[in-house]
Amino acid sequence: MKYSKRLSSMQESPIRKLVPYAIDAKSRGTKVYHLNIGQPDIKTPKGFFDAVKNFDSEVLEYAVSPGIPELIHAIRDYYTTYDMHFNDSQILITNGGSEALLFTIMAVCDPGDNILAPEPFYTNYNGFSQCANVTVKPITTKAEEGFHLPSKEEILSRIDPNTKAILLSNPGNPTGTVYTRAEIDMIAQIAKENDLWIIADEVYREFVYDGLEYTSFGNIEEIEDRVVIIDSVSKRYSACGARIGSIACKNTGLISQILKLCQGRLCVATLEQIGAVELYKTPTSYFKEVNNEYRKRRDVLYDELMKVDGVICKKPTGAFYIVAKLPVENAEEFVVWMLNEFSDENETVMPCPAEGFYATEGLGRDEVRLAYILNEKDLHRAAILLKEGLEKYVTLKKSEVLAGSEA
Amino acid sequence: MKYSKRLSSMQESPIRKLVPYAIDAKSRGTKVYHLNIGQPDIKTPKGFFDAVKNFDSEVLEYAVSPGIPELIHAIRDYYTTYDMHFNDSQILITNGGSEALLFTIMAVCDPGDNILAPEPFYTNYNGFSQCANVTVKPITTKAEEGFHLPSKEEILSRIDPNTKAILLSNPGNPTGTVYTRAEIDMIAQIAKENDLWIIADEVYREFVYDGLEYTSFGNIEEIEDRVVIIDSVSKRYSACGARIGSIACKNTGLISQILKLCQGRLCVATLEQIGAVELYKTPTSYFKEVNNEYRKRRDVLYDELMKVDGVICKKPTGAFYIVAKLPVENAEEFVVWMLNEFSDENETVMPCPAEGFYATEGLGRDEVRLAYILNEKDLHRAAILLKEGLEKYVTLKKSEVLAGSEA
Repeated sequence: MKYSKRLSSMQESPIRKLVPYAIDAKSRGTKVYHLNIGQPDIKTPKGFFDAVKNFDSEVLEYAVSPGIPELIHAIRDYYTTYDMHFNDSQILITNGGSEALLFTIMAVCDPGDNILAPEPFYTNYNGFSQCANVTVKPITTKAEEGFHLPSKEEILSRIDPNTKAILLSNPGNPTGTVYTRAEIDMIAQIAKENDLWIIADEVYREFVYDGLEYTSFGNIEEIEDRVVIIDSVSKRYSACGARIGSIACKNTGLISQILKLCQGRLCVATLEQIGAVELYKTPTSYFKEVNNEYRKRRDVLYDELMKVDGVICKKPTGAFYIVAKLPVENAEEFVVWMLNEFSDENETVMPCPAEGFYATEGLGRDEVRLAYILNEKDLHRAAILLKEGLEKYVTLKKSEVLAGSEA
Repeated sequence: MKYSKRLSSMQESPIRKLVPYAIDAKSRGTKVYHLNIGQPDIKTPKGFFDAVKNFDSEVLEYAVSPGIPELIHAIRDYYTTYDMHFNDSQILITNGGSEALLFTIMAVCDPGDNILAPEPFYTNYNGFSQCANVTVKPITTKAEEGFHLPSKEEILSRIDPNTKAILLSNPGNPTGTVYTRAEIDMIAQIAKENDLWIIADEVYREFVYDGLEYTSFGNIEEIEDRVVIIDSVSKRYSACGARIGSIACKNTGLISQILKLCQGRLCVATLEQIGAVELYKTPTSYFKEVNNEYRKRRDVLYDELMKVDGVICKKPTGAFYIVAKLPVENAEEFVVWMLNEFSDENETVMPCPAEGFYATEGLGRDEVRLAYILNEKDLHRAAILLKEGLEKYVTLKKSEVLAGSEA
């Protein structure tokens, strides 16, 4: 039997690809600290569970296709606090940020079209695009430059007649980079001058550290008809399993296109929407605490990383990821080695190789993404293990090279 | 700003298109009996809610991408009672039957490919296919023949080199038709001889009346590597708002292709999966009761319809829909008239025009789909209203024609 070409060419999730090695390590009794996945350990606000538990209808009916009005209102009010003013018909509820991205790509691109995205990028951008027979054209950014954007000329040189949109996550996954106001303005200008959509993945909006100013694409009035804001409760409220995302866009024509897709899949889970309404009532003090917690974790991990010779990365200022260039040739081999060969007091750590976050062949082979989603104590231990492992691995590789040259 | 062609050409949901007229009628104080949507009023088994309420983790984490093992086991065991034997890795949990269909179409078709489907068909088959730039080629079936399949020759004549699959719902939505063993065998032979996938939408499997034998495509061994079974808890357990569906397929190559899509959207809502495990423990007595209830409802609606001159339909034997040919030229106009002009004791009824369930231009214009999802008393009243409205409308139209010919 034949499968479609569109899926055959799709890569396996780089985040999940090495999981079997972790399972093996655990079966040998080794404790594995996971820095490979973005599953936070922060408590989900209790209001979510209370609302779900208080549901007292006897029939679990379909919700309406665009999303329940209570949740749409809540999201509208939430945006108001960021000085973004949508009306209810400009917001659609989706099955997580994932569906929001897939639907938006389908609505702005036909097969053969392409989308620009700064690389390294969230690996599923590729997956969603491939489903839709759309290509992601990378704008390469570098660890040495803290993954900030290249010049306007360089970005312009990537645009062709089939380019329909620029897709960016800000703060960045996997980079943790928060774009400056100047960068946001540059992208806005490029989009305007070249009639492109801006797909702004802002699910990490609250995770910005060091007192940095955050600018949303939703704050720039002159491009408001071309900006689609992708959002999700997953990280903001530590509610990854709820699968509640949203699309906000002032271009009502686009919203009515996407609404057809929403109608096609009927609705998003009713109970999860009811729970999510309560998430949006979470007091801002929650974000302050969570923010402070993540900043501390970032510092723990970053400080430890900086102690290793040859590690290159700028201190990230957002989200909860660090992409670091390691003094190794092949980060995937290093991660496999960490899981198969390395242990200290029967413990090891699992980073995520970063190559899968790049679209350009060969880039990122010596890089890893580290999610700082463990509590401070565990994270400190994980960082020490990473440092130890890395030093041991580098020494081992050097001795192999020496042995090779002597042979 | 430009939108994609793929969505621009997608029709609005025919089921939801006339909803504004119903809202207007209600705002004038008219009670509207809804026969237009498939939202059952049967109680969701309590186990679902109990399981959700008993969830006691403090973090709502991602579930695993293929679906939680407990739910996959439960579905595997469920299939065993129908003499279908899958192993756990041959089942994937999806966001409702909708996602199961979309993912399957994406996995077997590239842009430009087509899928055969007996028409009238579930309108979203078209939507899901258009997302994937795939065409649905209809195999026309007729009210006069109870929407049973045409000859093998006629079906073969629809196949071309880009045909990748046959997609059927059995029992049928919107037709309520249950295919005979001979029809199932014919489709199996056609698929085998022409190397096609069979996408079997069997979400109404339990809704078969009059002691009829039901054959699943999963029961025919010689085609087991080419059958994909789409399933859902929505109708079976009256849990439409849970959005839990599944794909079962013995072709593990196909499953691993679709798993990439599952990984792309990370997971299906965690709590809903936990609840759904309990649904699968529902005793079979539940189905017997529900089945009996729907059979009674079908009889109420069908018997009343048959009293109207010129209505054509065979008594359906499955699901909870009837497609009836009415003695009107344009069923959509009739439905709008029922909502705008007709009322009896301040009550009216809303059928769903069936034209949107056909791919062939012009077919189904004089047909409606009726969902018998109201309790017997309400349904009886709705059927009476439909009969009265129809008779009045037919008389009115006749007098208009007469007036026109006299003028």
